[in-house]
Amino acid sequence: MKKDSSGYVYIKVTLEYDGTLFSGWQTQPGRRTVQQEIEKALHTLTGEKTAVTGAGRTDAGVHALGQVASFQCPRRFDAKTLKNALNGMLPEDIRILDVERGDRPFYARHAASRTYRYVLYKRRKAVGRQYGWHPPGIVSFRRMKQASRHLKGEHHFGSFCKKDPEGGEPVSRVMKIRWMNTPDAWMFEIKADRFFHNMIRIIVGTLIEVGRGKMTPGEFKELFAARDRIQAGPTAPPCGLFLDRVEYR
Amino acid sequence: MKKDSSGYVYIKVTLEYDGTLFSGWQTQPGRRTVQQEIEKALHTLTGEKTAVTGAGRTDAGVHALGQVASFQCPRRFDAKTLKNALNGMLPEDIRILDVERGDRPFYARHAASRTYRYVLYKRRKAVGRQYGWHPPGIVSFRRMKQASRHLKGEHHFGSFCKKDPEGGEPVSRVMKIRWMNTPDAWMFEIKADRFFHNMIRIIVGTLIEVGRGKMTPGEFKELFAARDRIQAGPTAPPCGLFLDRVEYR
Repeated sequence: MKKDSSGYVYIKVTLEYDGTLFSGWQTQPGRRTVQQEIEKALHTLTGEKTAVTGAGRTDAGVHALGQVASFQCPRRFDAKTLKNALNGMLPEDIRILDVERGDRPFYARHAASRTYRYVLYKRRKAVGRQYGWHPPGIVSFRRMKQASRHLKGEHHFGSFCKKDPEGGEPVSRVMKIRWMNTPDAWMFEIKADRFFHNMIRIIVGTLIEVGRGKMTPGEFKELFAARDRIQAGPTAPPCGLFLDRVEYR
Repeated sequence: MKKDSSGYVYIKVTLEYDGTLFSGWQTQPGRRTVQQEIEKALHTLTGEKTAVTGAGRTDAGVHALGQVASFQCPRRFDAKTLKNALNGMLPEDIRILDVERGDRPFYARHAASRTYRYVLYKRRKAVGRQYGWHPPGIVSFRRMKQASRHLKGEHHFGSFCKKDPEGGEPVSRVMKIRWMNTPDAWMFEIKADRFFHNMIRIIVGTLIEVGRGKMTPGEFKELFAARDRIQAGPTAPPCGLFLDRVEYR
């Protein structure tokens, strides 16, 4: 529902959250979700029911360092007040990083790209175990990198996501694939215009099969072309996944 | 109690733990502690009651990246078996990083130095909030650094620790003070031969008063010399503190 334009402004919020204790972004009855926490805080603050939309509907346990959300808000709140008031009311596992406010419509879902990062620990860790995953048995990181190059460009991701019950084709344009090597972890970064359900976690789960020597980079490419989820690897756990940033035109 | 030397070997264990859900290192009835978890695992493994000693008795909520512990263990366990078996039995917030085994006595408490790190976040964080603290209102990081230089050398730390009920003098030799500046945090590193109860957290709490402009580096020096806990700042929270490493001669 569009609100009366004179009394309301459009809000763009950039936020961080620790997904560990959330059942994901999206409101679900009886569950603790990020969207619900923000809507609850906005309700208390403005006295009005406010619908908040997120750029990425992260799953249970997935983290965000730069999620973007949008909503409309009574004009009387300036950006700084809104940021401070929300941070004062939100639980400590959500932090508002930035608030922008304007008269021109802004919809978080209309993003040009989203960038996610998956953190693969080189060993099992106690400190930071909520923020990465250690897959045992990796023998070749080089071959994982090699296989991941096939993801770049516009592709059908049928092999790497759940089937859409409404029959939509999972076509996405991958703009960037990047690997970062730190003393503790390998990080896989992927930037694309769209992501489908569990897509990154299935890609990572399959790349790990390559790293373990159970699949060659060539077989990864064939499997990718087959558009068949059954052939891909298992879904990697959510704790390693971060929504890093969202970009707009 | 010393065990029969022929059937036993001395064990040095290096370990990491996330202090968030522990009531510290040391065994306390009815509480979850790191020492207890290790002793319980060793009891299950060896079938014998085993006393484990730690190099640093970290408080509730304090983390360790390189704690060292010692115990005696039946000779039949080699280092690799011990490491794998312990990691298989311990909860996921404790990880054994290394096991060394030898016939020569080794006592973790006889360390030459311990190095701790305190992580001061530059803003409140959701992701990683268990692993650092954001003190609001810091206006000068430079003055904190300046004040911290007075800590180097051999000093009486009466201003920065609880009084010893047995009347011991809290004299320690600080070998190194280092600050690291990362995009997210300032890290304060301190290496000394001995640390007293709450010493680093009181030092950090007092340095923050300097950073906030409530105390000059010169006043910090005077307060330090006064050997009077009452004049120092509040105790910084445990979540920012890490036992980084322990060294032996």
